Amino acid sequence: MTDKDKARQLVEKVTSLPGYTSMAGTQVLNADVGYVEMAVEKRQDLLQFNGFFHGGVISGLADHAAGGAVTTAMPKGKIGVTIDLHVNFLAPAKGEKLVAKARAIQSGSSISVAQVDVYSIENGDEVRCAVASVTLRSVDMPLG
Amino acid sequence: MTDKDKARQLVEKVTSLPGYTSMAGTQVLNADVGYVEMAVEKRQDLLQFNGFFHGGVISGLADHAAGGAVTTAMPKGKIGVTIDLHVNFLAPAKGEKLVAKARAIQSGSSISVAQVDVYSIENGDEVRCAVASVTLRSVDMPLG
Amino acid sequence: MTDKDKARQLVEKVTSLPGYTSMAGTQVLNADVGYVEMAVEKRQDLLQFNGFFHGGVISGLADHAAGGAVTTAMPKGKIGVTIDLHVNFLAPAKGEKLVAKARAIQSGSSISVAQVDVYSIENGDEVRCAVASVTLRSVDMPLG
Amino acid sequence: MTDKDKARQLVEKVTSLPGYTSMAGTQVLNADVGYVEMAVEKRQDLLQFNGFFHGGVISGLADHAAGGAVTTAMPKGKIGVTIDLHVNFLAPAKGEKLVAKARAIQSGSSISVAQVDVYSIENGDEVRCAVASVTLRSVDMPLG
Repeated sequence: MTDKDKARQLVEKVTSLPGYTSMAGTQVLNADVGYVEMAVEKRQDLLQFNGFFHGGVISGLADHAAGGAVTTAMPKGKIGVTIDLHVNFLAPAKGEKLVAKARAIQSGSSISVAQVDVYSIENGDEVRCAVASVTLRSVDMPLG
Repeated sequence: MTDKDKARQLVEKVTSLPGYTSMAGTQVLNADVGYVEMAVEKRQDLLQFNGFFHGGVISGLADHAAGGAVTTAMPKGKIGVTIDLHVNFLAPAKGEKLVAKARAIQSGSSISVAQVDVYSIENGDEVRCAVASVTLRSVDMPLG
Repeated sequence: MTDKDKARQLVEKVTSLPGYTSMAGTQVLNADVGYVEMAVEKRQDLLQFNGFFHGGVISGLADHAAGGAVTTAMPKGKIGVTIDLHVNFLAPAKGEKLVAKARAIQSGSSISVAQVDVYSIENGDEVRCAVASVTLRSVDMPLG
Repeated sequence: MTDKDKARQLVEKVTSLPGYTSMAGTQVLNADVGYVEMAVEKRQDLLQFNGFFHGGVISGLADHAAGGAVTTAMPKGKIGVTIDLHVNFLAPAKGEKLVAKARAIQSGSSISVAQVDVYSIENGDEVRCAVASVTLRSVDMPLG
Protein backbone atom coordinates (compact mmCIF):
# COMPACT_ATOMS: atom_id res chain seq x y z
CA MET A 1 0.00 0.00 0.00
CA THR A 2 1.38 3.44 -0.89
CA ASP A 3 1.77 6.19 1.71
CA LYS A 4 -1.12 7.96 0.05
CA ASP A 5 -3.33 4.88 0.35
CA LYS A 6 -2.39 4.54 4.01
CA ALA A 7 -3.19 8.21 4.62
CA ARG A 8 -6.60 7.83 3.00
CA GLN A 9 -7.36 4.66 4.95
CA LEU A 10 -6.47 6.35 8.24
CA VAL A 11 -8.57 9.43 7.50
CA GLU A 12 -11.53 7.32 6.33
CA LYS A 13 -11.35 5.26 9.51
CA VAL A 14 -11.29 8.21 11.91
CA THR A 15 -14.05 9.97 9.96
CA SER A 16 -16.42 6.99 9.94
CA LEU A 17 -16.35 6.28 13.68
CA PRO A 18 -19.59 7.01 15.54
CA GLY A 19 -20.00 10.62 16.66
CA TYR A 20 -20.35 14.19 15.43
CA THR A 21 -18.18 13.83 12.34
CA SER A 22 -19.89 10.82 10.82
CA MET A 23 -23.38 11.93 11.87
CA ALA A 24 -22.83 15.30 10.16
CA GLY A 25 -22.23 13.27 7.00
CA THR A 26 -18.57 14.19 6.62
CA GLN A 27 -17.06 12.84 3.39
CA VAL A 28 -13.37 12.35 2.65
CA LEU A 29 -12.75 13.80 -0.82
CA ASN A 30 -9.00 13.43 -0.90
CA ALA A 31 -6.20 12.49 1.49
CA ASP A 32 -2.44 12.26 1.30
CA VAL A 33 0.40 12.57 3.77
CA GLY A 34 -0.07 16.00 5.33
CA TYR A 35 -3.08 16.96 3.20
CA VAL A 36 -6.81 16.31 3.45
CA GLU A 37 -9.99 17.47 1.70
CA MET A 38 -13.36 16.90 3.34
CA ALA A 39 -16.93 17.97 2.76
CA VAL A 40 -20.38 18.14 4.29
CA GLU A 41 -23.61 18.63 2.36
CA LYS A 42 -26.22 21.24 3.23
CA ARG A 43 -28.66 19.90 5.80
CA GLN A 44 -31.06 21.75 8.09
CA ASP A 45 -29.25 20.77 11.29
CA LEU A 46 -25.95 22.24 10.03
CA LEU A 47 -27.26 25.72 9.27
CA GLN A 48 -27.81 29.00 11.00
CA PHE A 49 -31.32 30.40 11.13
CA ASN A 50 -30.55 32.41 7.99
CA GLY A 51 -29.86 29.26 5.98
CA PHE A 52 -26.05 29.56 5.83
CA PHE A 53 -23.73 26.93 7.28
CA HIS A 54 -23.25 27.54 11.02
CA GLY A 55 -19.90 28.83 12.30
CA GLY A 56 -19.63 25.82 14.59
CA VAL A 57 -20.02 23.48 11.64
CA ILE A 58 -17.38 25.37 9.65
CA SER A 59 -15.08 25.26 12.68
CA GLY A 60 -15.78 21.56 13.27
CA LEU A 61 -15.02 20.64 9.66
CA ALA A 62 -11.83 22.72 9.67
CA ASP A 63 -10.78 21.13 12.95
CA HIS A 64 -11.40 17.60 11.73
CA ALA A 65 -9.63 18.19 8.41
CA ALA A 66 -6.66 19.72 10.25
CA GLY A 67 -6.51 16.65 12.46
CA GLY A 68 -6.39 14.44 9.38
CA ALA A 69 -3.71 16.54 7.71
CA VAL A 70 -1.32 16.44 10.64
CA THR A 71 -2.07 12.87 11.77
CA THR A 72 -1.23 11.44 8.34
CA ALA A 73 2.17 13.12 8.68
CA MET A 74 2.83 11.62 12.12
CA PRO A 75 4.53 8.31 12.89
CA LYS A 76 2.11 5.34 13.01
CA GLY A 77 0.30 5.09 16.34
CA LYS A 78 0.11 8.84 16.96
CA ILE A 79 -2.84 11.18 16.47
CA GLY A 80 -3.16 14.97 16.61
CA VAL A 81 -5.34 16.52 19.32
CA THR A 82 -6.37 20.16 18.85
CA ILE A 83 -5.12 22.62 21.44
CA ASP A 84 -5.85 25.83 19.57
CA LEU A 85 -8.26 26.74 16.76
CA HIS A 86 -8.45 30.10 15.02
CA VAL A 87 -11.02 30.79 12.30
CA ASN A 88 -11.51 33.90 10.16
CA PHE A 89 -14.95 33.97 8.58
CA LEU A 90 -14.62 35.70 5.21
CA ALA A 91 -18.01 35.35 3.58
CA PRO A 92 -21.41 33.82 4.33
CA ALA A 93 -21.41 30.08 3.56
CA LYS A 94 -24.51 30.14 1.39
CA GLY A 95 -23.66 27.12 -0.73
CA GLU A 96 -25.01 23.62 -1.08
CA LYS A 97 -21.80 22.06 0.18
CA LEU A 98 -18.89 22.96 2.44
CA VAL A 99 -15.38 21.79 1.50
CA ALA A 100 -12.31 22.06 3.77
CA LYS A 101 -8.77 21.71 2.41
CA ALA A 102 -6.20 21.26 5.17
CA ARG A 103 -2.45 21.22 4.88
CA ALA A 104 0.09 20.46 7.61
CA ILE A 105 2.59 23.33 7.66
CA GLN A 106 4.54 22.12 10.67
CA SER A 107 5.07 18.56 11.87
CA GLY A 108 7.06 18.45 15.07
CA SER A 109 7.50 15.58 17.49
CA SER A 110 5.09 17.23 19.92
CA ILE A 111 3.40 20.14 18.09
CA SER A 112 1.88 20.32 14.60
CA VAL A 113 0.16 23.16 12.79
CA ALA A 114 -2.30 23.03 9.88
CA GLN A 115 -3.74 25.74 7.70
CA VAL A 116 -7.23 25.19 6.33
CA ASP A 117 -9.19 26.86 3.55
CA VAL A 118 -12.94 26.34 3.72
CA TYR A 119 -15.06 26.79 0.61
CA SER A 120 -18.77 27.17 0.12
CA ILE A 121 -19.77 25.47 -3.13
CA GLU A 122 -22.28 27.71 -4.87
CA ASN A 123 -23.62 26.52 -8.22
CA GLY A 124 -20.42 24.55 -8.61
CA ASP A 125 -18.11 27.47 -7.85
CA GLU A 126 -15.78 27.48 -4.85
CA VAL A 127 -16.21 30.61 -2.72
CA ARG A 128 -13.68 30.76 0.11
CA CYS A 129 -15.82 31.40 3.19
CA ALA A 130 -13.24 30.85 5.95
CA VAL A 131 -9.59 30.21 6.72
CA ALA A 132 -8.37 28.50 9.86
CA SER A 133 -5.08 27.81 11.59
CA VAL A 134 -5.08 24.88 13.94
CA THR A 135 -2.43 23.82 16.48
CA LEU A 136 -2.38 20.20 17.60
CA ARG A 137 -0.29 18.09 19.88
CA SER A 138 0.70 14.53 19.29
CA VAL A 139 -0.74 11.81 21.54
CA ASP A 140 -0.92 8.03 21.37
CA MET A 141 -3.73 6.86 19.11
CA PRO A 142 -6.56 5.54 21.29
CA LEU A 143 -7.85 3.31 18.47
CA GLY A 144 -7.05 -0.37 18.06
CA MET B 1 -40.28 44.44 30.66
CA THR B 2 -36.82 44.93 32.21
CA ASP B 3 -33.66 45.06 30.11
CA LYS B 4 -32.76 41.64 31.49
CA ASP B 5 -36.12 40.23 30.40
CA LYS B 6 -35.67 41.71 26.94
CA ALA B 7 -32.17 40.20 26.70
CA ARG B 8 -33.46 36.78 27.68
CA GLN B 9 -36.34 36.99 25.23
CA LEU B 10 -34.00 37.93 22.38
CA VAL B 11 -31.56 35.12 23.16
CA GLU B 12 -34.36 32.56 23.53
CA LYS B 13 -35.80 33.63 20.18
CA VAL B 14 -32.54 33.34 18.24
CA THR B 15 -31.69 30.04 19.92
CA SER B 16 -35.02 28.40 19.16
CA LEU B 17 -35.08 29.12 15.42
CA PRO B 18 -34.69 26.08 13.16
CA GLY B 19 -31.09 25.05 12.50
CA TYR B 20 -27.91 23.76 14.11
CA THR B 21 -28.36 25.52 17.43
CA SER B 22 -31.84 24.31 18.23
CA MET B 23 -31.27 20.85 16.78
CA ALA B 24 -28.20 20.41 18.99
CA GLY B 25 -30.56 21.01 21.91
CA THR B 26 -29.03 24.30 23.00
CA GLN B 27 -30.59 25.62 26.23
CA VAL B 28 -30.47 29.19 27.50
CA LEU B 29 -29.53 29.01 31.18
CA ASN B 30 -29.16 32.71 31.82
CA ALA B 31 -29.14 35.94 29.84
CA ASP B 32 -28.64 39.59 30.62
CA VAL B 33 -27.39 42.62 28.72
CA GLY B 34 -23.89 41.61 27.58
CA TYR B 35 -23.91 38.22 29.29
CA VAL B 36 -25.22 34.78 28.34
CA GLU B 37 -25.02 31.22 29.68
CA MET B 38 -25.95 28.31 27.43
CA ALA B 39 -25.71 24.54 27.57
CA VAL B 40 -25.97 21.37 25.51
CA GLU B 41 -26.42 17.87 26.92
CA LYS B 42 -24.26 14.90 25.99
CA ARG B 43 -25.61 13.17 22.90
CA GLN B 44 -23.89 10.76 20.51
CA ASP B 45 -23.95 13.17 17.56
CA LEU B 46 -22.12 15.88 19.54
CA LEU B 47 -19.14 13.73 20.52
CA GLN B 48 -15.77 12.75 19.18
CA PHE B 49 -15.08 9.06 18.66
CA ASN B 50 -13.51 8.95 22.13
CA GLY B 51 -16.74 10.02 23.78
CA PHE B 52 -15.75 13.61 24.61
CA PHE B 53 -17.60 16.63 23.21
CA HIS B 54 -16.29 17.47 19.72
CA GLY B 55 -14.19 20.59 19.20
CA GLY B 56 -16.66 21.81 16.60
CA VAL B 57 -19.50 21.55 19.11
CA ILE B 58 -17.48 23.42 21.76
CA SER B 59 -16.65 26.08 19.14
CA GLY B 60 -20.25 26.29 17.97
CA LEU B 61 -21.61 26.72 21.49
CA ALA B 62 -18.96 29.36 22.29
CA ASP B 63 -19.76 31.17 19.04
CA HIS B 64 -23.50 31.18 19.66
CA ALA B 65 -23.12 32.30 23.28
CA ALA B 66 -20.76 35.09 22.18
CA GLY B 67 -23.34 36.19 19.63
CA GLY B 68 -25.97 36.39 22.37
CA ALA B 69 -23.69 38.30 24.73
CA VAL B 70 -22.84 41.02 22.25
CA THR B 71 -26.25 41.22 20.54
CA THR B 72 -28.04 41.89 23.83
CA ALA B 73 -25.69 44.86 24.30
CA MET B 74 -26.45 46.28 20.84
CA PRO B 75 -29.21 48.74 19.92
CA LYS B 76 -32.51 47.07 19.00
CA GLY B 77 -32.56 45.82 15.41
CA LYS B 78 -28.87 44.91 15.28
CA ILE B 79 -27.25 41.48 15.57
CA GLY B 80 -23.63 40.36 15.90
CA VAL B 81 -22.10 38.28 13.11
CA THR B 82 -18.87 36.45 13.87
CA ILE B 83 -15.80 37.46 11.89
CA ASP B 84 -13.15 35.81 14.02
CA LEU B 85 -13.22 32.91 16.49
CA HIS B 86 -10.29 31.74 18.61
CA VAL B 87 -10.58 28.75 20.93
CA ASN B 88 -8.01 27.31 23.36
CA PHE B 89 -8.88 23.76 24.34
CA LEU B 90 -7.70 23.25 27.92
CA ALA B 91 -8.97 19.83 28.92
CA PRO B 92 -10.99 16.97 27.42
CA ALA B 93 -14.73 17.69 27.68
CA LYS B 94 -15.64 14.38 29.29
CA GLY B 95 -18.73 15.57 31.11
CA GLU B 96 -22.45 14.97 30.73
CA LYS B 97 -23.12 18.60 29.82
CA LEU B 98 -21.31 21.52 28.22
CA VAL B 99 -21.92 25.04 29.56
CA ALA B 100 -20.67 28.26 27.89
CA LYS B 101 -20.56 31.57 29.76
CA ALA B 102 -20.03 34.52 27.43
CA ARG B 103 -19.40 38.13 28.33
CA ALA B 104 -19.18 41.12 25.99
CA ILE B 105 -15.90 42.90 26.74
CA GLN B 106 -16.20 45.46 23.96
CA SER B 107 -19.33 46.91 22.38
CA GLY B 108 -18.53 49.29 19.57
CA SER B 109 -20.81 50.67 16.91
CA SER B 110 -19.28 48.31 14.34
CA ILE B 111 -17.11 45.78 16.25
CA SER B 112 -17.81 43.81 19.42
CA VAL B 113 -15.69 41.29 21.29
CA ALA B 114 -16.78 38.55 23.71
CA GLN B 115 -14.80 36.26 25.97
CA VAL B 116 -16.25 32.84 26.65
CA ASP B 117 -15.47 30.19 29.28
CA VAL B 118 -16.68 26.71 28.41
CA TYR B 119 -17.16 24.15 31.15
CA SER B 120 -17.60 20.42 31.08
CA ILE B 121 -19.98 19.38 33.86
CA GLU B 122 -18.58 16.24 35.43
CA ASN B 123 -20.57 14.74 38.32
CA GLY B 124 -21.90 18.21 38.98
CA ASP B 125 -18.50 19.92 39.00
CA GLU B 126 -17.55 22.57 36.46
CA VAL B 127 -14.26 21.74 34.73
CA ARG B 128 -13.14 24.55 32.40
CA CYS B 129 -12.42 22.76 29.13
CA ALA B 130 -12.01 25.74 26.78
CA VAL B 131 -11.78 29.51 26.55
CA ALA B 132 -12.68 31.49 23.46
CA SER B 133 -12.42 35.04 22.22
CA VAL B 134 -14.86 36.01 19.52
CA THR B 135 -14.95 39.14 17.34
CA LEU B 136 -18.25 40.11 15.77
CA ARG B 137 -19.51 42.92 13.60
CA SER B 138 -22.86 44.55 13.87
CA VAL B 139 -25.39 44.07 11.08
CA ASP B 140 -29.11 44.69 10.70
CA MET B 141 -31.16 41.91 12.28
CA PRO B 142 -32.61 39.75 9.50
CA LEU B 143 -35.50 38.60 11.72
CA GLY B 144 -38.95 40.07 11.69
CA MET C 1 1.76 56.57 -11.78
CA THR C 2 0.67 52.92 -11.90
CA ASP C 3 -1.40 51.32 -9.14
CA LYS C 4 1.69 49.41 -8.10
CA ASP C 5 3.72 52.61 -7.83
CA LYS C 6 0.97 54.21 -5.76
CA ALA C 7 0.84 51.16 -3.47
CA ARG C 8 4.60 51.30 -2.94
CA GLN C 9 4.54 55.03 -2.28
CA LEU C 10 1.79 54.64 0.32
CA VAL C 11 3.56 51.78 2.10
CA GLU C 12 6.91 53.62 2.07
CA LYS C 13 5.26 56.71 3.53
CA VAL C 14 3.54 54.90 6.42
CA THR C 15 6.68 52.86 7.16
CA SER C 16 9.00 55.86 7.32
CA LEU C 17 6.98 57.93 9.79
CA PRO C 18 8.54 58.36 13.24
CA GLY C 19 7.84 55.51 15.66
CA TYR C 20 8.37 51.82 16.30
CA THR C 21 8.33 50.73 12.68
CA SER C 22 10.93 53.11 11.34
CA MET C 23 13.11 52.89 14.46
CA ALA C 24 13.18 49.10 14.17
CA GLY C 25 14.66 49.68 10.72
CA THR C 26 11.73 48.26 8.76
CA GLN C 27 12.43 48.10 5.01
CA VAL C 28 9.85 47.83 2.24
CA LEU C 29 11.06 45.12 -0.12
CA ASN C 30 8.05 45.00 -2.38
CA ALA C 31 4.55 46.42 -2.52
CA ASP C 32 1.57 46.10 -4.81
CA VAL C 33 -2.19 46.43 -4.43
CA GLY C 34 -3.06 43.90 -1.70
CA TYR C 35 0.48 42.58 -1.27
CA VAL C 36 3.50 43.70 0.73
CA GLU C 37 6.96 42.37 1.62
CA MET C 38 8.91 43.91 4.48
CA ALA C 39 12.06 43.13 6.41
CA VAL C 40 14.05 43.97 9.53
CA GLU C 41 17.71 43.18 10.07
CA LYS C 42 19.09 41.42 13.14
CA ARG C 43 19.84 43.91 15.89
CA GLN C 44 20.34 43.36 19.62
CA ASP C 45 17.20 45.27 20.62
CA LEU C 46 15.00 43.05 18.41
CA LEU C 47 16.08 39.73 19.90
CA GLN C 48 15.17 37.43 22.73
CA PHE C 49 17.84 36.63 25.31
CA ASN C 50 18.68 33.49 23.30
CA GLY C 51 19.59 35.54 20.24
CA PHE C 52 16.51 34.76 18.14
CA PHE C 53 14.11 37.44 16.94
CA HIS C 54 11.58 38.24 19.68
CA GLY C 55 7.95 37.14 19.29
CA GLY C 56 6.82 40.73 19.69
CA VAL C 57 9.05 41.81 16.81
CA ILE C 58 7.73 39.01 14.60
CA SER C 59 4.18 39.99 15.56
CA GLY C 60 4.88 43.67 14.97
CA LEU C 61 6.36 43.08 11.53
CA ALA C 62 3.46 40.77 10.57
CA ASP C 63 0.98 43.36 11.82
CA HIS C 64 2.59 46.21 9.92
CA ALA C 65 2.88 44.19 6.70
CA ALA C 66 -0.76 43.13 7.01
CA GLY C 67 -1.73 46.78 7.40
CA GLY C 68 0.12 47.63 4.20
CA ALA C 69 -1.42 44.74 2.28
CA VAL C 70 -5.01 45.67 3.10
CA THR C 71 -4.57 49.46 3.00
CA THR C 72 -3.21 49.38 -0.55
CA ALA C 73 -6.40 47.55 -1.54
CA MET C 74 -8.66 50.17 0.09
CA PRO C 75 -10.08 53.30 -1.53
CA LYS C 76 -7.80 56.35 -1.23
CA GLY C 77 -8.10 58.07 2.15
CA LYS C 78 -8.74 54.87 4.13
CA ILE C 79 -6.32 52.88 6.30
CA GLY C 80 -6.59 49.50 8.01
CA VAL C 81 -6.46 49.37 11.81
CA THR C 82 -5.80 45.97 13.40
CA ILE C 83 -8.55 44.55 15.58
CA ASP C 84 -7.30 40.98 15.82
CA LEU C 85 -3.87 39.38 15.39
CA HIS C 86 -3.16 35.65 15.48
CA VAL C 87 0.38 34.30 15.13
CA ASN C 88 1.57 30.68 14.99
CA PHE C 89 5.29 30.42 15.73
CA LEU C 90 6.64 27.51 13.70
CA ALA C 91 10.40 27.62 14.23
CA PRO C 92 12.99 29.72 16.08
CA ALA C 93 13.86 32.85 14.08
CA LYS C 94 17.61 32.36 14.19
CA GLY C 95 18.43 34.21 11.01
CA GLU C 96 20.17 37.46 10.17
CA LYS C 97 17.00 38.99 8.74
CA LEU C 98 13.24 38.66 9.16
CA VAL C 99 11.00 38.97 6.09
CA ALA C 100 7.19 39.20 6.18
CA LYS C 101 5.05 38.61 3.09
CA ALA C 102 1.46 39.73 3.56
CA ARG C 103 -1.47 39.23 1.25
CA ALA C 104 -4.98 40.66 1.59
CA ILE C 105 -7.42 37.75 1.34
CA GLN C 106 -10.54 39.78 2.04
CA SER C 107 -11.21 43.43 1.31
CA GLY C 108 -14.59 44.51 2.56
CA SER C 109 -15.97 48.00 3.02
CA SER C 110 -15.51 47.71 6.78
CA ILE C 111 -13.44 44.55 7.46
CA SER C 112 -10.30 43.24 5.77
CA VAL C 113 -8.22 40.14 6.44
CA ALA C 114 -4.58 39.45 5.58
CA GLN C 115 -2.50 36.29 5.79
CA VAL C 116 1.19 36.71 6.47
CA ASP C 117 4.15 34.35 6.12
CA VAL C 118 7.22 35.34 8.12
CA TYR C 119 10.62 33.99 7.13
CA SER C 120 13.92 33.90 8.95
CA ILE C 121 16.73 34.35 6.45
CA GLU C 122 19.49 31.94 7.39
CA ASN C 123 22.59 31.94 5.19
CA GLY C 124 20.42 33.20 2.38
CA ASP C 125 17.72 30.53 2.79
CA GLU C 126 14.14 31.39 3.74
CA VAL C 127 12.95 29.37 6.74
CA ARG C 128 9.28 30.01 7.51
CA CYS C 129 9.27 30.84 11.22
CA ALA C 130 5.69 32.09 11.65
CA VAL C 131 2.32 32.53 9.98
CA ALA C 132 -0.20 35.15 10.98
CA SER C 133 -3.79 36.04 10.20
CA VAL C 134 -4.74 39.62 10.84
CA THR C 135 -8.19 41.24 10.87
CA LEU C 136 -8.40 44.99 10.30
CA ARG C 137 -11.14 47.54 10.03
CA SER C 138 -11.21 50.47 7.70
CA VAL C 139 -10.93 53.98 9.14
CA ASP C 140 -10.22 57.40 7.68
CA MET C 141 -6.51 57.98 7.10
CA PRO C 142 -5.21 60.34 9.82
CA LEU C 143 -2.35 61.48 7.58
CA GLY C 144 -2.30 64.64 5.52
CA MET D 1 12.80 32.21 50.08
CA THR D 2 9.02 31.96 49.50
CA ASP D 3 7.55 30.66 46.26
CA LYS D 4 6.47 34.20 45.49
CA ASP D 5 10.01 35.51 46.01
CA LYS D 6 11.37 32.77 43.74
CA ALA D 7 8.79 33.64 41.09
CA ARG D 8 9.74 37.31 41.20
CA GLN D 9 13.45 36.52 41.05
CA LEU D 10 12.96 34.30 37.99
CA VAL D 11 10.86 36.89 36.17
CA GLU D 12 13.27 39.71 37.00
CA LYS D 13 16.17 37.64 35.71
CA VAL D 14 14.59 36.77 32.37
CA THR D 15 13.35 40.34 31.90
CA SER D 16 16.73 41.95 32.54
CA LEU D 17 18.75 39.87 30.07
CA PRO D 18 20.05 41.76 27.02
CA GLY D 19 17.56 42.04 24.15
CA TYR D 20 14.19 43.44 23.11
CA THR D 21 12.52 43.15 26.50
CA SER D 22 15.11 44.96 28.56
CA MET D 23 15.85 47.52 25.84
CA ALA D 24 12.14 48.40 25.64
CA GLY D 25 12.43 49.24 29.33
CA THR D 26 10.15 46.45 30.55
CA GLN D 27 9.50 46.65 34.31
CA VAL D 28 8.28 43.84 36.54
CA LEU D 29 5.49 45.30 38.69
CA ASN D 30 4.40 42.10 40.38
CA ALA D 31 5.07 38.37 40.10
CA ASP D 32 3.81 35.26 41.80
CA VAL D 33 3.46 31.61 40.84
CA GLY D 34 1.31 31.69 37.70
CA TYR D 35 0.80 35.46 37.69
CA VAL D 36 2.81 38.40 36.40
CA GLU D 37 2.32 42.16 35.93
CA MET D 38 4.68 44.10 33.67
CA ALA D 39 4.88 47.57 32.21
CA VAL D 40 6.58 49.72 29.63
CA GLU D 41 6.61 53.51 29.60
CA LYS D 42 5.70 55.64 26.60
CA ARG D 43 8.73 56.20 24.37
CA GLN D 44 8.91 57.31 20.74
CA ASP D 45 10.31 54.00 19.49
CA LEU D 46 7.37 52.05 20.97
CA LEU D 47 4.63 54.03 19.26
CA GLN D 48 2.70 54.03 16.03
CA PHE D 49 2.88 57.12 13.86
CA ASN D 50 -0.33 58.35 15.51
CA GLY D 51 1.30 58.39 18.95
CA PHE D 52 -0.40 55.29 20.37
CA PHE D 53 1.53 52.21 21.50
CA HIS D 54 2.26 49.97 18.51
CA GLY D 55 0.43 46.64 18.15
CA GLY D 56 3.75 44.83 18.04
CA VAL D 57 4.75 46.37 21.37
CA ILE D 58 1.41 45.40 22.93
CA SER D 59 1.83 41.88 21.53
CA GLY D 60 5.43 41.66 22.72
CA LEU D 61 4.56 42.76 26.25
CA ALA D 62 1.62 40.33 26.40
CA ASP D 63 3.84 37.54 25.10
CA HIS D 64 6.59 38.21 27.62
CA ALA D 65 4.15 38.50 30.54
CA ALA D 66 2.48 35.25 29.47
CA GLY D 67 5.87 33.57 29.43
CA GLY D 68 6.52 34.74 32.98
CA ALA D 69 3.11 33.61 34.21
CA VAL D 70 3.44 30.07 32.92
CA THR D 71 7.17 29.64 33.61
CA THR D 72 6.77 30.49 37.30
CA ALA D 73 4.21 27.67 37.48
CA MET D 74 6.56 25.14 35.86
CA PRO D 75 9.05 22.87 37.61
CA LYS D 76 12.49 24.45 38.14
CA GLY D 77 14.65 24.24 35.02
CA LYS D 78 11.78 24.59 32.54
CA ILE D 79 10.69 27.64 30.56
CA GLY D 80 7.65 28.36 28.38
CA VAL D 81 8.18 29.03 24.67
CA THR D 82 5.30 30.62 22.77
CA ILE D 83 3.74 28.58 19.99
CA ASP D 84 0.59 30.60 19.49
CA LEU D 85 -0.37 34.19 20.27
CA HIS D 86 -3.81 35.72 19.79
CA VAL D 87 -4.49 39.38 20.54
CA ASN D 88 -7.77 41.31 20.39
CA PHE D 89 -7.17 45.05 20.25
CA LEU D 90 -10.06 46.73 22.07
CA ALA D 91 -9.14 50.41 22.20
CA PRO D 92 -6.29 52.69 21.12
CA ALA D 93 -3.43 52.58 23.64
CA LYS D 94 -3.17 56.33 24.10
CA GLY D 95 -1.75 56.29 27.59
CA GLU D 96 1.60 57.16 29.14
CA LYS D 97 2.22 53.57 30.20
CA LEU D 98 1.23 50.06 29.11
CA VAL D 99 0.58 47.40 31.79
CA ALA D 100 0.08 43.69 31.09
CA LYS D 101 -1.43 41.33 33.66
CA ALA D 102 -0.95 37.68 32.76
CA ARG D 103 -2.41 34.63 34.45
CA ALA D 104 -1.64 30.98 33.72
CA ILE D 105 -4.98 29.22 33.16
CA GLN D 106 -3.51 25.85 32.24
CA SER D 107 -0.23 24.31 33.33
CA GLY D 108 0.36 20.97 31.70
CA SER D 109 3.55 18.96 31.48
CA SER D 110 3.97 19.97 27.85
CA ILE D 111 1.43 22.74 27.11
CA SER D 112 0.51 25.84 29.12
CA VAL D 113 -1.97 28.62 28.38
CA ALA D 114 -2.07 32.17 29.73
CA GLN D 115 -4.68 34.90 29.46
CA VAL D 116 -3.44 38.47 29.47
CA ASP D 117 -5.21 41.80 29.98
CA VAL D 118 -3.32 44.81 28.68
CA TYR D 119 -4.12 48.27 30.02
CA SER D 120 -3.26 51.72 28.79
CA ILE D 121 -2.71 54.00 31.77
CA GLU D 122 -4.35 57.33 30.98
CA ASN D 123 -4.12 60.03 33.65
CA GLY D 124 -3.80 57.27 36.21
CA ASP D 125 -6.83 55.29 34.99
CA GLU D 126 -6.54 51.78 33.58
CA VAL D 127 -8.21 51.49 30.16
CA ARG D 128 -8.17 47.90 28.89
CA CYS D 129 -6.75 48.21 25.38
CA ALA D 130 -6.17 44.53 24.53
CA VAL D 131 -6.68 40.95 25.66
CA ALA D 132 -4.47 38.07 24.61
CA SER D 133 -4.44 34.31 24.90
CA VAL D 134 -1.06 32.69 24.60
CA THR D 135 -0.16 29.01 24.21
CA LEU D 136 3.32 27.90 25.24
CA ARG D 137 5.20 24.66 25.39
CA SER D 138 7.63 23.65 28.05
CA VAL D 139 11.32 23.34 27.16
CA ASP D 140 14.53 23.08 29.17
CA MET D 141 15.70 26.47 30.42
CA PRO D 142 18.69 27.60 28.35
CA LEU D 143 19.94 29.82 31.18
CA GLY D 144 22.59 28.87 33.70
